[in-house]
Amino acid sequence: MGKLNVAIMGATGMVGQQYIRLLEKHPWFEISILMGKRSAGKKFGDAVEWVGSYDPPSKVKEVVVSEIEPEKQAADLFFSCLPSEVAREVEGKFAQKYPVVSDTSAYRMESDVPIIIPELNSEHIKIIERQKRERGWKGFIVTGPNCTTTGLAVALKPLDEAYNVRKVFVTTMQAVSGAGYPGVPSLLIIDNVIPYIKDEEEKVARETRKILGKFQNGIIVENDMMVAASCNRVPVIDGHLESVYIETEKKVNVEEAKSILRDFKGVPQELKLPSAPEKPILVREENDRPQPRRDRDSGSVPGMSVVVGRVRKGLDEYSLQFTVLSHNTIRGAAGNAILTAELLYRMEYIK
Amino acid sequence: MGKLNVAIMGATGMVGQQYIRLLEKHPWFEISILMGKRSAGKKFGDAVEWVGSYDPPSKVKEVVVSEIEPEKQAADLFFSCLPSEVAREVEGKFAQKYPVVSDTSAYRMESDVPIIIPELNSEHIKIIERQKRERGWKGFIVTGPNCTTTGLAVALKPLDEAYNVRKVFVTTMQAVSGAGYPGVPSLLIIDNVIPYIKDEEEKVARETRKILGKFQNGIIVENDMMVAASCNRVPVIDGHLESVYIETEKKVNVEEAKSILRDFKGVPQELKLPSAPEKPILVREENDRPQPRRDRDSGSVPGMSVVVGRVRKGLDEYSLQFTVLSHNTIRGAAGNAILTAELLYRMEYIK
Amino acid sequence: MGKLNVAIMGATGMVGQQYIRLLEKHPWFEISILMGKRSAGKKFGDAVEWVGSYDPPSKVKEVVVSEIEPEKQAADLFFSCLPSEVAREVEGKFAQKYPVVSDTSAYRMESDVPIIIPELNSEHIKIIERQKRERGWKGFIVTGPNCTTTGLAVALKPLDEAYNVRKVFVTTMQAVSGAGYPGVPSLLIIDNVIPYIKDEEEKVARETRKILGKFQNGIIVENDMMVAASCNRVPVIDGHLESVYIETEKKVNVEEAKSILRDFKGVPQELKLPSAPEKPILVREENDRPQPRRDRDSGSVPGMSVVVGRVRKGLDEYSLQFTVLSHNTIRGAAGNAILTAELLYRMEYIK
Amino acid sequence: MGKLNVAIMGATGMVGQQYIRLLEKHPWFEISILMGKRSAGKKFGDAVEWVGSYDPPSKVKEVVVSEIEPEKQAADLFFSCLPSEVAREVEGKFAQKYPVVSDTSAYRMESDVPIIIPELNSEHIKIIERQKRERGWKGFIVTGPNCTTTGLAVALKPLDEAYNVRKVFVTTMQAVSGAGYPGVPSLLIIDNVIPYIKDEEEKVARETRKILGKFQNGIIVENDMMVAASCNRVPVIDGHLESVYIETEKKVNVEEAKSILRDFKGVPQELKLPSAPEKPILVREENDRPQPRRDRDSGSVPGMSVVVGRVRKGLDEYSLQFTVLSHNTIRGAAGNAILTAELLYRMEYIK
Repeated sequence: MGKLNVAIMGATGMVGQQYIRLLEKHPWFEISILMGKRSAGKKFGDAVEWVGSYDPPSKVKEVVVSEIEPEKQAADLFFSCLPSEVAREVEGKFAQKYPVVSDTSAYRMESDVPIIIPELNSEHIKIIERQKRERGWKGFIVTGPNCTTTGLAVALKPLDEAYNVRKVFVTTMQAVSGAGYPGVPSLLIIDNVIPYIKDEEEKVARETRKILGKFQNGIIVENDMMVAASCNRVPVIDGHLESVYIETEKKVNVEEAKSILRDFKGVPQELKLPSAPEKPILVREENDRPQPRRDRDSGSVPGMSVVVGRVRKGLDEYSLQFTVLSHNTIRGAAGNAILTAELLYRMEYIK
Repeated sequence: MGKLNVAIMGATGMVGQQYIRLLEKHPWFEISILMGKRSAGKKFGDAVEWVGSYDPPSKVKEVVVSEIEPEKQAADLFFSCLPSEVAREVEGKFAQKYPVVSDTSAYRMESDVPIIIPELNSEHIKIIERQKRERGWKGFIVTGPNCTTTGLAVALKPLDEAYNVRKVFVTTMQAVSGAGYPGVPSLLIIDNVIPYIKDEEEKVARETRKILGKFQNGIIVENDMMVAASCNRVPVIDGHLESVYIETEKKVNVEEAKSILRDFKGVPQELKLPSAPEKPILVREENDRPQPRRDRDSGSVPGMSVVVGRVRKGLDEYSLQFTVLSHNTIRGAAGNAILTAELLYRMEYIK
Repeated sequence: MGKLNVAIMGATGMVGQQYIRLLEKHPWFEISILMGKRSAGKKFGDAVEWVGSYDPPSKVKEVVVSEIEPEKQAADLFFSCLPSEVAREVEGKFAQKYPVVSDTSAYRMESDVPIIIPELNSEHIKIIERQKRERGWKGFIVTGPNCTTTGLAVALKPLDEAYNVRKVFVTTMQAVSGAGYPGVPSLLIIDNVIPYIKDEEEKVARETRKILGKFQNGIIVENDMMVAASCNRVPVIDGHLESVYIETEKKVNVEEAKSILRDFKGVPQELKLPSAPEKPILVREENDRPQPRRDRDSGSVPGMSVVVGRVRKGLDEYSLQFTVLSHNTIRGAAGNAILTAELLYRMEYIK
Repeated sequence: MGKLNVAIMGATGMVGQQYIRLLEKHPWFEISILMGKRSAGKKFGDAVEWVGSYDPPSKVKEVVVSEIEPEKQAADLFFSCLPSEVAREVEGKFAQKYPVVSDTSAYRMESDVPIIIPELNSEHIKIIERQKRERGWKGFIVTGPNCTTTGLAVALKPLDEAYNVRKVFVTTMQAVSGAGYPGVPSLLIIDNVIPYIKDEEEKVARETRKILGKFQNGIIVENDMMVAASCNRVPVIDGHLESVYIETEKKVNVEEAKSILRDFKGVPQELKLPSAPEKPILVREENDRPQPRRDRDSGSVPGMSVVVGRVRKGLDEYSLQFTVLSHNTIRGAAGNAILTAELLYRMEYIK
């Protein structure tokens, strides 16, 4: 049996480069098309401003980047990490015919489009049946969350199930790779912190509620926890760190909370999907972990586990504090999308 | 009239170096003694590992560092920025005879010792009368807060007066100079964040309550606001940035809150003390300010104003979010202590 | 007597911002026009992506940026820090009528255009008489060197006079502000060094030879020293550091060389020009200086002195090693141009 | 056949931690003893200030660190990365009985002790026969070079063979991990470069001459090339970058020089030693490589290949310029020592 042909739309960007790296030896998927707006017509190796510490596979360097035109391209699956200003139109056109798994925000908040973190809400995938039906699409769009939402949502999921989380106060310290390439000018971030990331705080609040919502009667009913976010950019290459304070309905026991986080598993672990980390959440006991540089690649599938540490009491028994780290371009983008595609394949939405 | 002779205990450390810089041209105070434990007997210029971007005054470089012995030293005022492990014993001995203004944590939480931020709680100074009486000291100890507490407390004061702050959730992003010298190894902090600073979270919570407390019937009655802190070290040289969320008893109006912060003044401004900034709080309207590197030295007395930005709504009308920056070795240490000494001088506690 | 009206072409860029800061309280010059290509028609405060740690003067923020059209603009002096792709045409047009002092590379290597560092080669200014005559210009163009050339050339000048420098091996470690804004992406430079800066090595070699050349019989005869440069970008905000090894014709004595550097003075010091530092070269004796962050603003006019350290023996008696630092956007750009304009004014080329 | 028991002296330091990581799955060697001065008696996991981005193997964490006493310890091989102040005495004592492979400078410049880079000078190993005989030792000491010498020497070796290198001008930009732990304070290096590393320049010059020397008539005859080094510390975690200019006796052809570097192989490659990279030298053709963060782990054995780029003409035909990168704690320390031990084992000096 051959591998599925996958296309990457926005292949030359930061997240596109992660797709290429992560898919290089993928057991089920094979890159057949690279698409880009400005780079169309050039060899990928010439068009890309490659930023990683590994080199692009030489085969990929020779691929000529295609234009983004649904009429001309065919693949079993389209990954999209396009700039948001073009994503809306393009993804919609491709979804008329093909499965699209997108990291962009274009369709995330549409009521019939799920935001999937496979360990958390695989049941939301079913909504694409309604999506296809009502939109008259042969394909569909499934999205992944903003890179800042991901780590937070993963950590909240088991805690919400156990304690019913009511309020979340989160302050993020985000890596520069989250802003893409060229992204944050070094002039602005060396010896500095920028206490603002456009639209990020709203996204974190809304997406978290949707991801942690329930799929009932064919619709996604948002979780009613309230999220107040404060987003900061720090001089770190990869890995978003987040200080979290939660208020809960039920009493929280710190040691129990750690066990709950540590033991959390989801469908990808059951199905042993290729990109599923053994443990979605790693809990560290040291005082001073997780740290972005040291922990962003930890776990059995580097960059796919969320690392939680400093789990401790809040101001009263109905609260908890902790620190979350997740790799923003892997679990927060390309890695999560590939895991989602693996799940879609096993659920036979992609064939 | 001559200047007062002041001594600096712990002169070779990071904060000691700030004292030397700030006092170089002080109108009222003149450095007469530099004291240090390991450096005693050496010329200051030889003993110090000077880290600033200005050079120590050549006169100061020639001063021979003295041992820290109360019997042998006399001055009108002793500033202490000793390592905490020696501070307790030494400061107590000096206070038997002399005024001591300390940046250390040794005596901060003693019930008869005030933690002074001159704009906030100058009335707490009166407690030193009890302190002298009950301890039988001719001198006294007045302390300043931990460098992380300072910016937070300054911003909270006028908001608490206006809205009665009940809960505070604060996540800090602290500069490496806050850890002294040699302090944080570069190996640990380049491309990284360390989500932990020993004892810092407890200090922020307790000190804030004490500073914002009332002086009643000869005792300091702590403010009953609750503070949950999460402290992080970031790769920034100077300037502690803090993301703050507050819950209040009274309804908050964002524009009004900004005016209240902007208009806040204290006794140092009325008395026009030499180190008092024109405005204790600068409010910025840009989305992405304050930033440590760009704003830490702003205001009429560089490093003495606290900069507040991103003032915005919280989850409901009884809440507010904002970001605070303060220069940790100036307003958070030496500068605040010098301002305190100026106030003590004008109140005639130091002569 | 009123101040001269000066215009800044390319005002919203990094160097433009330095002009605005440095000219804010200038005794002779007053900014009357700000020009920019993309920002024309907007208020400067709205158009600029201001990056400094000081705020632009409020008066300047209200200035509407003008188009760059020689027919429509008049001023006593035009400073140019335009992007190189537009500089050639624009500067030439303005020079037909007005004095132009340029930081760009467009005209630097023209045989009738001098590259001026006022302390080094003020006599080269005379060539503008030929320039005006032959080109039929009423105005003229005087340029300043590339920011990397500046520090090197200043240090070489007195050593060349004393020892006749034959070969120069220089490795630079350059600040990110040298690349303008947005310039170097933080993704590329955090925890990294980039061992290449486009065209920089050639510029350093050629410009040094020209600046240190002699003005003879109406032409600039290049110095025949040979310069091999290796240029690197490091994660530093401001200040280009350069490791230099020179081979000389005459025997070098290290202590004498230090005296020669320390005692060096030029025309700006004699004329006491407003932007002239007391000492063009500061020599440090510590093992580990100069350092960019700590020394870039040293001297009597911050950023205008070149700092030399680690002066030591080379492999034989006809060689010398040392380290040079200069502030790339001040002495290496705006500051040097303003000093040049001051000199032109005193020489009555600008009226 | 069982594995050889190896001991690590100075196991808790930065280089010690690299040994532990690199030996975790070594086919021939097994860690049996960890030794340390201050940490003796404690479990390794409690004693170590672990700094890597991987965790120490759990088995190793439980090992109780031993005192450094030759009478009490036995192993087939002792790796030493002790602080230099204790290394001299301790290594000498152990060498009386056991093979010692050392990263320290204590014995490097002794005439009967070789400094080995296995690809370069494996024939120097024979001198240990004289060493054992004359010192009356049953064991011996073999050293590795200073981390800054390594990359330079590797690149020079094939060029010296082809062109006879006469002079070397090298400016280094060294990573903070080269200073060990805690090493360089972050206060000194953020937004900065420190243009000095104690004793480093002398080491680079002397060690290079010795390593590239010939083994003749039982002695190592130093190479007579002259090396002038200028050493700088930059804010980079791992990877020493060096700008090199060489003068040669024979004419240099750039393309040929690149081939010579690219094709260079040594004994470890022939013997296919476990830690030998396929290519000791990787040559990059891009303008802007090698870069520390992106290239330090490249090659078939991460951190063991030296990466050379920017190979280009010097000032005349008898010169060449290039940039070298090597991973300072792997090829520059633990990795090189392990490769040396592998070679000693295959040569049957260790059994």
